[in-house]
Amino acid sequence: MTDPKFEQLQQRLAEVNNLTKASTLLFWDQRVMMPPGGASARAEAIGTISTIAQERFVDPAIGKLLEELRAFEENSEYDSFEASLIRVTRRDYEKATRVPPELVGDLNRASAVALSAWGPAKEESNFEALRPYLETNLELRHRYVECFDPADETYDVLLDNYEPNMKTADVRQIFEQLKEELVPLMQEIGDAGDVDDSFLHQEFDQDAQRAFSLEVLRRFGYTDDEWRIDQTQHPFMTTPGHGDIRLTTNYRRDDLSSLFATMHEFGHGVYEWGVDESIAGTPLGSGVSLGLHESQSRTWENLIGRNRSFWRYFYPRLQATFPGQFGSVDEEAFYRAVNKVHPSLIRIDADEVTYNLHIILRFELEQELIDERLAVRDLPEAWNARIETYLGVEVPDDARGVLQDMHWAGGGFGYFPTYSLGNVISVQIWERLKEDLDDVDERFERGEFDDVREWLRDHLYRMGRKFSPQETIERVTGSRIDAKPYVRYLREKLAPQAV
Amino acid sequence: MTDPKFEQLQQRLAEVNNLTKASTLLFWDQRVMMPPGGASARAEAIGTISTIAQERFVDPAIGKLLEELRAFEENSEYDSFEASLIRVTRRDYEKATRVPPELVGDLNRASAVALSAWGPAKEESNFEALRPYLETNLELRHRYVECFDPADETYDVLLDNYEPNMKTADVRQIFEQLKEELVPLMQEIGDAGDVDDSFLHQEFDQDAQRAFSLEVLRRFGYTDDEWRIDQTQHPFMTTPGHGDIRLTTNYRRDDLSSLFATMHEFGHGVYEWGVDESIAGTPLGSGVSLGLHESQSRTWENLIGRNRSFWRYFYPRLQATFPGQFGSVDEEAFYRAVNKVHPSLIRIDADEVTYNLHIILRFELEQELIDERLAVRDLPEAWNARIETYLGVEVPDDARGVLQDMHWAGGGFGYFPTYSLGNVISVQIWERLKEDLDDVDERFERGEFDDVREWLRDHLYRMGRKFSPQETIERVTGSRIDAKPYVRYLREKLAPQAV
Repeated sequence: MTDPKFEQLQQRLAEVNNLTKASTLLFWDQRVMMPPGGASARAEAIGTISTIAQERFVDPAIGKLLEELRAFEENSEYDSFEASLIRVTRRDYEKATRVPPELVGDLNRASAVALSAWGPAKEESNFEALRPYLETNLELRHRYVECFDPADETYDVLLDNYEPNMKTADVRQIFEQLKEELVPLMQEIGDAGDVDDSFLHQEFDQDAQRAFSLEVLRRFGYTDDEWRIDQTQHPFMTTPGHGDIRLTTNYRRDDLSSLFATMHEFGHGVYEWGVDESIAGTPLGSGVSLGLHESQSRTWENLIGRNRSFWRYFYPRLQATFPGQFGSVDEEAFYRAVNKVHPSLIRIDADEVTYNLHIILRFELEQELIDERLAVRDLPEAWNARIETYLGVEVPDDARGVLQDMHWAGGGFGYFPTYSLGNVISVQIWERLKEDLDDVDERFERGEFDDVREWLRDHLYRMGRKFSPQETIERVTGSRIDAKPYVRYLREKLAPQAV
Repeated sequence: MTDPKFEQLQQRLAEVNNLTKASTLLFWDQRVMMPPGGASARAEAIGTISTIAQERFVDPAIGKLLEELRAFEENSEYDSFEASLIRVTRRDYEKATRVPPELVGDLNRASAVALSAWGPAKEESNFEALRPYLETNLELRHRYVECFDPADETYDVLLDNYEPNMKTADVRQIFEQLKEELVPLMQEIGDAGDVDDSFLHQEFDQDAQRAFSLEVLRRFGYTDDEWRIDQTQHPFMTTPGHGDIRLTTNYRRDDLSSLFATMHEFGHGVYEWGVDESIAGTPLGSGVSLGLHESQSRTWENLIGRNRSFWRYFYPRLQATFPGQFGSVDEEAFYRAVNKVHPSLIRIDADEVTYNLHIILRFELEQELIDERLAVRDLPEAWNARIETYLGVEVPDDARGVLQDMHWAGGGFGYFPTYSLGNVISVQIWERLKEDLDDVDERFERGEFDDVREWLRDHLYRMGRKFSPQETIERVTGSRIDAKPYVRYLREKLAPQAV
């Protein structure tokens, strides 16, 4: 008992999806395969395809169909594909149609230009070279925010693009709790003395790293039939189509960080891969929010990939791959090294504890910028002061400080908190998983990850975007977002008495 | 003194070009990079993008602009960018708007389905499995032909898609001349006894083949900045954007055919690469016809790559790469082996002389099919009889006979003759080039190809599609298409007394 209008809606959305997927491939190829000479033609192609995708999505015909389908939606079960598609599309449509196409163009262009300026600015550690672009980005965000009904806080409107329905006040509360617990935890760990991780900083053959990473991925569920992995400077995951999951990683010569980056990107990939077949290719067919997405990348990177039982299985294999480097390092020493907590300057290299302080700092600063309590020109100073307060480290230059991340240049204000929300959510889901699968560690020790992956698929991945992030978390865990399990996990795993 | 209407036209055409380039990348990726699981989503994406590209091109607004720009065109020099763009676009537009969108859809779908059937049919050497699809393809071609004004011959309308403005009667005349000359030449060569090429059929390390091919390509002008080369089962060339030329080749384990395939694809690539910057990204910015395109692939593969002076430079290098295989083979023996003339079953492996007989046979058969003088069910028999007549070889099975090429399954009736037209044109252009550059052989012996490439660029590649194929040939060579230089070239190079 479907409605022909519903089929029309599906058809229009399929077209938008195909345009978006084409654009995804243009982007992937640009970063991974394209000879540099193709850059300018590629920018044009991406511009055309994304504009058409946007035009076709905000087409009033879609608004009309959504109105005409209200009764159909109400007569369908809340959980049904039909009701979910209409509900989620309506929300997307209402947001998208608020923003005039010219402003969308301005936002995209300004981000592209600022991103191009970011690279050299970071290279030269020259914040002033980036400053005007950040100012433009911020100004454009204010114009963007004005397109929406007034929110409790300006930042709410931006946050909503990455973590739908989440309020800044809620994030603040969670982050206050994290700060309260993690700063002293970091102290305790520091007081207990340094962990030796020097053996992680040696030369590692890149082909061997690649082979070992692939061995791990294949155990996780990677197949050549539906995945590929390539090398890029900045690792990322993207899906140019259902059944086509693409990871990238960066095999560095002098450490094993790529292995963890690979498991991280696998976590993003397996979430997309696990979306139910029936909603693939529709607006419901992907991860529901950046926070939930990050919960899965951190699950596979940290909860699994830095787990003692994971290394019980894999460490002998790693030793066999790098006998010169690890022949005389025992499993416990290796485990402690890959879990070493140590305050440092760079977010992406940070450990599980201090990572969150990097995020909290960014979250606070970007609110101050948005609320105009902090001027862009004063940002480096504010950054350096706060890093010192939270992490006790001194910033030697802006390249290793405020310029290290591309997010603000790319216009991504409101993006950072989703990283720590992901950490928090990951452990909530993990605790729930361990109630159902009580011998997780034994499975890992045997190199078995299928049941864990399938549990996550059945309980989380399949849903895609059918429900809001909050509904999704509640459906998986039975409770609202809550920092306590995460803090407990960190303390149990990493506090001095635990090690 | 441009016209705002002209700018509007350019803008619309740029959009169509961007869609086409996106579609090109989707196709390239599908063949080269995509994990197989992505196939069905990719087919959807390609469908959407090509439909939108077609819709936007046949938009009546473009027709209106073309009408309104008639005066502007007449006031512009024939050779100018403006007049050329309007003239060429008008021809493309008139052709495109003749065919109803539903028929375009039917043609594309039928070809896609038939192509999928072709692979297994060839695998099993089962013509009957492909027959119904070929019949549908032919029937659809008749519906296609009916969209146009009656031509002298039905085949003219199909040929025009690959070799614009060329008439079947002209091709027939050229091919009669070729047949008359080449059949006896083949006999003479055969009577002179067999050339030993057994050393070409050994095992060749694929990485070494790749490295050697790249050395050749770099000498030709390939740079990592604007080119890439990958491996696929069937070699091809495509350009997903200006300054982004992509070749593929197939490094076989047991012969060196990939080297010649690579030079062949380079010839296609360098033509696209050499199009003038000022017309890149417009409908003028690519090779003008398949015949001209093939003239360049055959130039780089045969006129250069099977040239004695080319091997004077490269053979010592090839020997150094494969000392076991070629250490005891002298240059002359090698040169004769890569130029061995020998009637055989497979077109793509054929030598310079017999290749054309493969084409003439296909050209004749497809006319008979189109004119309904030959039924599809009788095609294998007709094929086998004619191969025996022209080449004196017996077809053991349809896989090595009528099923060997994918063109007819893909709907490409009228495509084959362009291969031999390319051969003919290549030598006409080459003779002209040698009038300007009189020490071509000496350059090749020194491994220098830049001046030859730049001559071709200046005299041919730059023009792109500004002029018709016939105009283009006349501008480069000063004469109309003419088989004599080609026949002379083959005789001089390959007749027994010449070797």
